[in-house]
Amino acid sequence: MPLVRISMREGRPPAAVTAIGDAVHRALVEAAKAPADGKFQIVTEHGPDGLVHPPSYMGVPKSDAFVVVQITMNAGRTVEVKRALYAKIAELLEKDAGVRPGDVIISLVEVPQENWSWGGGEMTYVK
Amino acid sequence: MPLVRISMREGRPPAAVTAIGDAVHRALVEAAKAPADGKFQIVTEHGPDGLVHPPSYMGVPKSDAFVVVQITMNAGRTVEVKRALYAKIAELLEKDAGVRPGDVIISLVEVPQENWSWGGGEMTYVK
Amino acid sequence: MPLVRISMREGRPPAAVTAIGDAVHRALVEAAKAPADGKFQIVTEHGPDGLVHPPSYMGVPKSDAFVVVQITMNAGRTVEVKRALYAKIAELLEKDAGVRPGDVIISLVEVPQENWSWGGGEMTYVK
Repeated sequence: MPLVRISMREGRPPAAVTAIGDAVHRALVEAAKAPADGKFQIVTEHGPDGLVHPPSYMGVPKSDAFVVVQITMNAGRTVEVKRALYAKIAELLEKDAGVRPGDVIISLVEVPQENWSWGGGEMTYVK
Repeated sequence: MPLVRISMREGRPPAAVTAIGDAVHRALVEAAKAPADGKFQIVTEHGPDGLVHPPSYMGVPKSDAFVVVQITMNAGRTVEVKRALYAKIAELLEKDAGVRPGDVIISLVEVPQENWSWGGGEMTYVK
Repeated sequence: MPLVRISMREGRPPAAVTAIGDAVHRALVEAAKAPADGKFQIVTEHGPDGLVHPPSYMGVPKSDAFVVVQITMNAGRTVEVKRALYAKIAELLEKDAGVRPGDVIISLVEVPQENWSWGGGEMTYVK
């Protein structure tokens, strides 16, 4: 159900790019009960001019290996679930894809259930 | 008024890419009263690693020809208008651009009217 | 704190692309109190088929030099702050990057503070 946009600098081997997407999806399933069969991701790789970051933000250093994860998903998850989701994404990105936790940036955009059609021109979650 | 992001796999001929954008815009005009002269679209084509989908979701098979349409638009449309919009996008994408309805994924992001400036540094819809 | 997506047609020299991002960031800091050290931007350049605009919208002509700025940021800014932000973005884009004000399109997407993790897998603004 979530639609995930992942943005990173170009230059990683394809297996590393795939590992990043896999880690984000697994975290969504494990921490936020996203459907396991709902892995829809738009993954873009950018040059230095295309993905801009400061040297650090709020005391956390940022490197060119940073990854931006923006997730559009149904509203309704609690603050605690969101907190667990952030921790799980960072944990799995480090463990499975070698991304330093400080380099993981996550943005959630929440929408009502009626705002999705996942195929067939039908409103998926509201009948 | 809507800002539309359309994402698809690379490889379609340019005329097919254009037909997809045209179909989405026409559906917005016909089903959701979007302004006919407000066709603003960001269309991106991706390799297999850049646009990821499951083999099927909620019983609807997905192919590599799938198209993701994410629309940022003013809040306020009813559930019924949204439902009609999904149906019209899928109908026109099939008829005008040969996209199988099961391969059409639509995500709406709604914002208040004050959240747009369409030129001149002015707030467009709230004076 | 804002995550900014800037989309433009390809063909500008790199310095002009950088100037556009700098102008948008400076406007956010000056008009909307965004943190000066929080410049996170995803900048994409597109061919004619990838960034589509009408010849004009609501009486304001659009050229191929148009720039789309979509900002995801915390909710809570007033209409007047948003109005000042639009004016400042257009002003600085013209002054610092030579973009005609009529060619500046701005879309705001607002989220609650709990919807961000800026590093370390932690919820940044809600403890």
